Amino acid sequence: MRDLSNDRALLSINAATVRQRWGLGEIIDGCARRQIGGIAPWRDQIAAYGLDKTARHIRDAGLTVTGVCRGGMFPAADAAGLKANIEDNLRAIDEAVTLGAECLVLVVGGMPEGSKDIAGARRQVEDGIAAVLEYARTNDMPLAIEPLHPMYAADRACVNTLGQALDMCERLGQGEGKSVGVAVDVYHVWWDPDLQAQIARAGEQGRLLAFHVCDWLVPTTDMLLDRGMMGDGIIDIPAIRGWVEDAGFEGLCEVEIFSAENWWKRDPEEVLDVCIERHQTAV
Amino acid sequence: MRDLSNDRALLSINAATVRQRWGLGEIIDGCARRQIGGIAPWRDQIAAYGLDKTARHIRDAGLTVTGVCRGGMFPAADAAGLKANIEDNLRAIDEAVTLGAECLVLVVGGMPEGSKDIAGARRQVEDGIAAVLEYARTNDMPLAIEPLHPMYAADRACVNTLGQALDMCERLGQGEGKSVGVAVDVYHVWWDPDLQAQIARAGEQGRLLAFHVCDWLVPTTDMLLDRGMMGDGIIDIPAIRGWVEDAGFEGLCEVEIFSAENWWKRDPEEVLDVCIERHQTAV
Repeated sequence: MRDLSNDRALLSINAATVRQRWGLGEIIDGCARRQIGGIAPWRDQIAAYGLDKTARHIRDAGLTVTGVCRGGMFPAADAAGLKANIEDNLRAIDEAVTLGAECLVLVVGGMPEGSKDIAGARRQVEDGIAAVLEYARTNDMPLAIEPLHPMYAADRACVNTLGQALDMCERLGQGEGKSVGVAVDVYHVWWDPDLQAQIARAGEQGRLLAFHVCDWLVPTTDMLLDRGMMGDGIIDIPAIRGWVEDAGFEGLCEVEIFSAENWWKRDPEEVLDVCIERHQTAV
Repeated sequence: MRDLSNDRALLSINAATVRQRWGLGEIIDGCARRQIGGIAPWRDQIAAYGLDKTARHIRDAGLTVTGVCRGGMFPAADAAGLKANIEDNLRAIDEAVTLGAECLVLVVGGMPEGSKDIAGARRQVEDGIAAVLEYARTNDMPLAIEPLHPMYAADRACVNTLGQALDMCERLGQGEGKSVGVAVDVYHVWWDPDLQAQIARAGEQGRLLAFHVCDWLVPTTDMLLDRGMMGDGIIDIPAIRGWVEDAGFEGLCEVEIFSAENWWKRDPEEVLDVCIERHQTAV
């Protein structure tokens, strides 16, 4: 495994982690001041700061863009909704290209309002990715399907295991490797009994596009906004990083923490310092 | 599929559903008054009401005991803890036998305090079941491993998919069928892309021991105590019941709802009436 004990270059900060008190420009500066290697901005942050300004600022700061959050959200109740979602994904690809991102992260979406048809939602997701895949390929922007924890299956993402995501990649990608792959977030997949094997499979296929870290707290008091800092929970993050690196992943470790009652309330300067320390000791 | 539209005989009430305002004796009477077919009591309720008294009352009321909740909770931080947990499961088997239950439901347990080793916890679970299985067989009490939703993997049950539970059954049961099987609760497994295939596998092996219903609400406001009444959420319960019945299940549909802010606050008389109505229309 790579030695992170003095590393900052392999650390990336997902900009959601400090979004409550800093705008995107401040986040970029905060990372750059600390020689943090990468950043992953959200589209609403990019829109607020300005796409070209964001691209220039990140480039000048020397940061790798480990992903743009997010494309996806494909399912819809009708044809107009499906079409609008596809168009939005095409715009997301353009933005990711402008930023020189390593991938566009896809949070694929759950079931449309009123639906109980998760299999149908999954077909809509696959059809949606298929509809934008050629555009992504042409623009050299890998699409990273992020399997989300099954507790988000209804309303956020109906792709819920790495195996399921890779099955989808295989059907979509026809062996063309990284044009469609996966983002592995320990928060979403740590519990999966098949995780090690599926990470190896992703690596063999060249589909490991991103690696996200945070921690699962016990107890977890909110299903969305109570993620823990690495080391504060029960995920064996080094074990999973080992599997990911054994599978050939050479990218950055992206810290993505939604924490309404703890980390989002703290001074972002402190949060970034803790991210660095935990990246070096608990990832 | 079986026609439930006028049925009460195939309905079972898990006694947690109305536990806040009724003792076990009242719950038994409330079910019997309505010609509900079955009940699934919890061990603390049984202890409070008295084991022999519970057995007699349920027998006199003509109710099927679709399961006793619960055995399991095998993992521990040390040998003494593991031993104590095994002994507790032997007592649970005795109680289930006294009640003439169709199975003892196993909520297998999560990781011991301070542990990050989910694979180790899973080995402890399998070893624990192995340690009590012969006693269960001798006493003709099937053990039903209940895979719990992955959001409980850390602290309640590290068996989180039906496939994982069946793998464990196969290693434990050596083809001896129902001595160890599974409880399928739609709340825990509805999201699983492999669900239909794993239900079929469970049926082929004679391991479908129990079928639990409630619903997944959107949004879900509490990870433990915000389950919905059948029909109020997004699970396609009839589809899953169809798979279960296609796989040969002939048992009762057990309603198990933990709902601190809604159903637990209502009059149990009303709750049971709604359970009957939803059993007939939404299951």
